[in-house]
Amino acid sequence: MRILVTNDDGIDSPGIYALAQALQGVGEVTVVAPNQQQSAVGHALTVAVPLRVHPYERNGKPFGHAVTGTPADCVKLALDAILPERPDIVVSGINHGRNTAVSLIYSGTVSAATEGTLLGIPSIAISLDNFSLDADFTHAAEVAAWLVPILHQHHLPRGVLLNVNVPAIPRDQIKGVRIAEQGSGFWNDRYEVRHDPMGRPYYWLTGSYIPDGHSGSDDQLLTEGYVTITPIHYRLTDHTMLEELRTWGIEGKGGA
Amino acid sequence: MRILVTNDDGIDSPGIYALAQALQGVGEVTVVAPNQQQSAVGHALTVAVPLRVHPYERNGKPFGHAVTGTPADCVKLALDAILPERPDIVVSGINHGRNTAVSLIYSGTVSAATEGTLLGIPSIAISLDNFSLDADFTHAAEVAAWLVPILHQHHLPRGVLLNVNVPAIPRDQIKGVRIAEQGSGFWNDRYEVRHDPMGRPYYWLTGSYIPDGHSGSDDQLLTEGYVTITPIHYRLTDHTMLEELRTWGIEGKGGA
Repeated sequence: MRILVTNDDGIDSPGIYALAQALQGVGEVTVVAPNQQQSAVGHALTVAVPLRVHPYERNGKPFGHAVTGTPADCVKLALDAILPERPDIVVSGINHGRNTAVSLIYSGTVSAATEGTLLGIPSIAISLDNFSLDADFTHAAEVAAWLVPILHQHHLPRGVLLNVNVPAIPRDQIKGVRIAEQGSGFWNDRYEVRHDPMGRPYYWLTGSYIPDGHSGSDDQLLTEGYVTITPIHYRLTDHTMLEELRTWGIEGKGGA
Repeated sequence: MRILVTNDDGIDSPGIYALAQALQGVGEVTVVAPNQQQSAVGHALTVAVPLRVHPYERNGKPFGHAVTGTPADCVKLALDAILPERPDIVVSGINHGRNTAVSLIYSGTVSAATEGTLLGIPSIAISLDNFSLDADFTHAAEVAAWLVPILHQHHLPRGVLLNVNVPAIPRDQIKGVRIAEQGSGFWNDRYEVRHDPMGRPYYWLTGSYIPDGHSGSDDQLLTEGYVTITPIHYRLTDHTMLEELRTWGIEGKGGA
């Protein structure tokens, strides 16, 4: 099995290192990841400037390919120009911090898996519910190593990815694995206004995440101590609203 | 009616100018837009560095606020720190080039409207099906000025936006307005490998768009000469796959 590993925290982050190490025992791993932090980049693609690729070493040994771009760039470029053969699976992570609810829209980790599944490769995004620098990724990496062969045996349709979140608690407190729905948690954020030495204002985004407390949501199950797995699609037409729009009387010559 | 206007092509682009001019007759317009081109940024937020805001003039008159960030940043910052009152509507565009099918995932134009509706403001993304620099935005701007008051009279639920595409053909050839589904068109793209003067390779994304030819899709109706309106949501759980996953036997203690 050929596994493409990427992330959004950058190729030098501990999360991708733990992930790549754990997946070595599962298949042939190639790491292609951003050369620097790319959090909250959404599904960005680099189109205005070209990409560069540099070999990246870790502990004195070749670790992967560092790309001067976004997570989605990494997957696209890996398939088109770096990997000699198409991978069987794309795994993106392990992200520092949960990717649940509305965060899926902003997440670079998820966007890499999105690009993977859009290109027809079964893809997983995996995140650990811990923002701290000394987070322990061991267990989350083992969850990935457990899930990847299972995914390889099943069919995941093009355009659908698996979004996995792992609680950052001692292993013996984890309650198990649950299939979860995307919650409706949101960021309660605002801009902090500061002033530079010349007295000019600048604005820095700050805030806290308000998780969805409904049972069955990714947010709530994760908080309760479950590893959550959520299938994510990108069929974005709102069919209820589509029918509603037909009653507005806007079709026809009106605005055209 | 208070209207927030933004885009992803940058505050100096002709599309946002035509849009803001046309909406002056409809409500009180405030322009808050990126200070430079932000195409294909997806739903990126700037978190690692602060944002700056500069007044921007056009034809010697105040035009709007130029933000050193992404389209989503612009909407968030406008609501939190620039506008004295919440806007009634967010309009993002007019984009140079269609935003249909898979492009919605990459589009900065759409991401601004996404941020608007996530923040509870009825929001529209509008694009003209023409990439050329001398595209005529007049008619697309009139479509926006027609649709905004209609939207203001109706209810658009939080989390749903209207994605509008306008054909770039003479007005008398436009067939009318149609409610459309997001198509399944895709980019057939690849990286062109070039070499710098030192002989080192760099990779530039290039390719062409393959529109969805199914009747009723945004792609096809737009190609046929209709103004298309598609309601877009972000409830990303794939419920069919969720039920399928339950049959994989992965819930429980297995991977945890």
